[in-house]
Amino acid sequence: MSKTKVLLLGATGETGASILEGLARDGSFDISIAVRPASADKPAVRALADRGFSILSIDLSKKVNASVLTPFDTVISSIGPESQQSQLNFARAAKAAGVTRFVPCGFITVCPPGGIMALRDAKEEVYNLIFKLHLPYTIIDTGFWHQISFPPLPSGKLDEFHFLGENKLYGDGNAPNLLTDLRDIGPFVARIIRDPRTLNKKVFTWSDELSQNEIYALAEKLSGESIDKKPFALEEIEAVITKAKQAVDADPTNIGLQMGLWSQEYNMSKYYREDNTRKVALYLGYLDAKELYPDFKPITFEEYFKEILEGKGNRPYAGRF
Amino acid sequence: MSKTKVLLLGATGETGASILEGLARDGSFDISIAVRPASADKPAVRALADRGFSILSIDLSKKVNASVLTPFDTVISSIGPESQQSQLNFARAAKAAGVTRFVPCGFITVCPPGGIMALRDAKEEVYNLIFKLHLPYTIIDTGFWHQISFPPLPSGKLDEFHFLGENKLYGDGNAPNLLTDLRDIGPFVARIIRDPRTLNKKVFTWSDELSQNEIYALAEKLSGESIDKKPFALEEIEAVITKAKQAVDADPTNIGLQMGLWSQEYNMSKYYREDNTRKVALYLGYLDAKELYPDFKPITFEEYFKEILEGKGNRPYAGRF
Repeated sequence: MSKTKVLLLGATGETGASILEGLARDGSFDISIAVRPASADKPAVRALADRGFSILSIDLSKKVNASVLTPFDTVISSIGPESQQSQLNFARAAKAAGVTRFVPCGFITVCPPGGIMALRDAKEEVYNLIFKLHLPYTIIDTGFWHQISFPPLPSGKLDEFHFLGENKLYGDGNAPNLLTDLRDIGPFVARIIRDPRTLNKKVFTWSDELSQNEIYALAEKLSGESIDKKPFALEEIEAVITKAKQAVDADPTNIGLQMGLWSQEYNMSKYYREDNTRKVALYLGYLDAKELYPDFKPITFEEYFKEILEGKGNRPYAGRF
Repeated sequence: MSKTKVLLLGATGETGASILEGLARDGSFDISIAVRPASADKPAVRALADRGFSILSIDLSKKVNASVLTPFDTVISSIGPESQQSQLNFARAAKAAGVTRFVPCGFITVCPPGGIMALRDAKEEVYNLIFKLHLPYTIIDTGFWHQISFPPLPSGKLDEFHFLGENKLYGDGNAPNLLTDLRDIGPFVARIIRDPRTLNKKVFTWSDELSQNEIYALAEKLSGESIDKKPFALEEIEAVITKAKQAVDADPTNIGLQMGLWSQEYNMSKYYREDNTRKVALYLGYLDAKELYPDFKPITFEEYFKEILEGKGNRPYAGRF
């Protein structure tokens, strides 16, 4: 059987790198990598070319010729949160090229559209174009990563692994949250994109569904340290979000301000609205990747936490943020 | 087993009346009817009270007390196209009351959101609120009715049955369209709302999927008359829609102008985009009511057309438009 021809956009990002490794290890895909013209000469891209991946330079700021995507069966997009709209020309070209599965850049927490998370709504705009085009698709959401879901320890022992390190306790701390190890996104995606059951469906990946209280208890038990949790009330996060929105409105091209807003909206959705749960995912029509692939054993949060306690692991976005 | 307590909003409309008859004939529902305070004394509402239905007067222009909806298991909304936003307070109250199935006012053709049909987008705004509330729901779309899908005959024989009577041929006339007899909406809804498989799902009903060419051929064969079809090109409908949008923008509270726009957007979606098809419905994640209820034999378009050729039937919206 010939290999499925996959084009991956965003292979040098955190999620994209996981996808690339997952597809490469799987062995059943012929993988090409799409990059922006401005990125074609970056060391990270040259390193991928050196590993033998075909590199396609595509300018998504204008109409993309269908012929560019004609060779591919499956197209996967995993790009920066600030670049979601660049997928619109990508999706149009995929439709014109007859791509049989388009995986837009999902890969976030489960959350309904309509003003809860600006980042979600930017993605939904792309999804709506996909639906208008009748373009075959699979939307994959991954919950929150283990790598950004653990608290700092008083000893400072885990500081080197922290990208989002804080010891706030949002609400009562009991909201369950879907979690996936960043390294498992790729293996999940490899299974999902060759599965006919996931065509024209939304799928969520997860290893655990844990509350902050459960995470704190586990962290204290495994580390032997006592963590000082800082309660954060609904009114406080509402005030923070209002302020963050005002800052974005006053300076709409400032990506740093947008990221500040997005991170607070994640917290609102995860901890107060309780959107990022298995129950809500099923309610919203997602398929459960753990049910689809019972053979695959994702890395649990506890396994991940033990690794970093032993000093193993990498901080996400190392060298970038 | 006690009967499911259903509250129906919009029972005096065309779709609502079909739903009411379907639920009443089914026998497994305890049916109440919600009306606006301004409608409570209308003859049509008094006639329903005389038949023994409980009538609830609810003002949807303001917050609705949860206690009003607490007695009901299932709430169904079937209201005029111009009143979609009045469902927002209704949905919020349903959530607060713990209603276990909310059926918002769908009951139109299959079509993706995002600027194709203003009427669809008004409904999607309600759906998005439902999703944000995590309110249990079933969305039911019914394609286009037999009753408004047949052409006029040169003899004028069918004129009394015409609400939308025209002999245009949109595009090449080959776009397939999902059709449901207006009278079958109720029996379909009765089955759908007691079916656990349809909870938190979209469902489409249909008897036939027919193109204009198939409908014209059938009408000519059964009537023995020759119909003069008037070709209507994509550019023509685009121009008509542009003009209709300008008219609505200039006079946004004029319902007549909105209806003019909606009817052309139906045509664009049905005949040029080919959205109202089984294929697109399945692509968009709808369940097929004919597959769910193989025991139910919906009235086919041919059966309906034979009836009106024999002079049997009622014009939709008789006495109203």
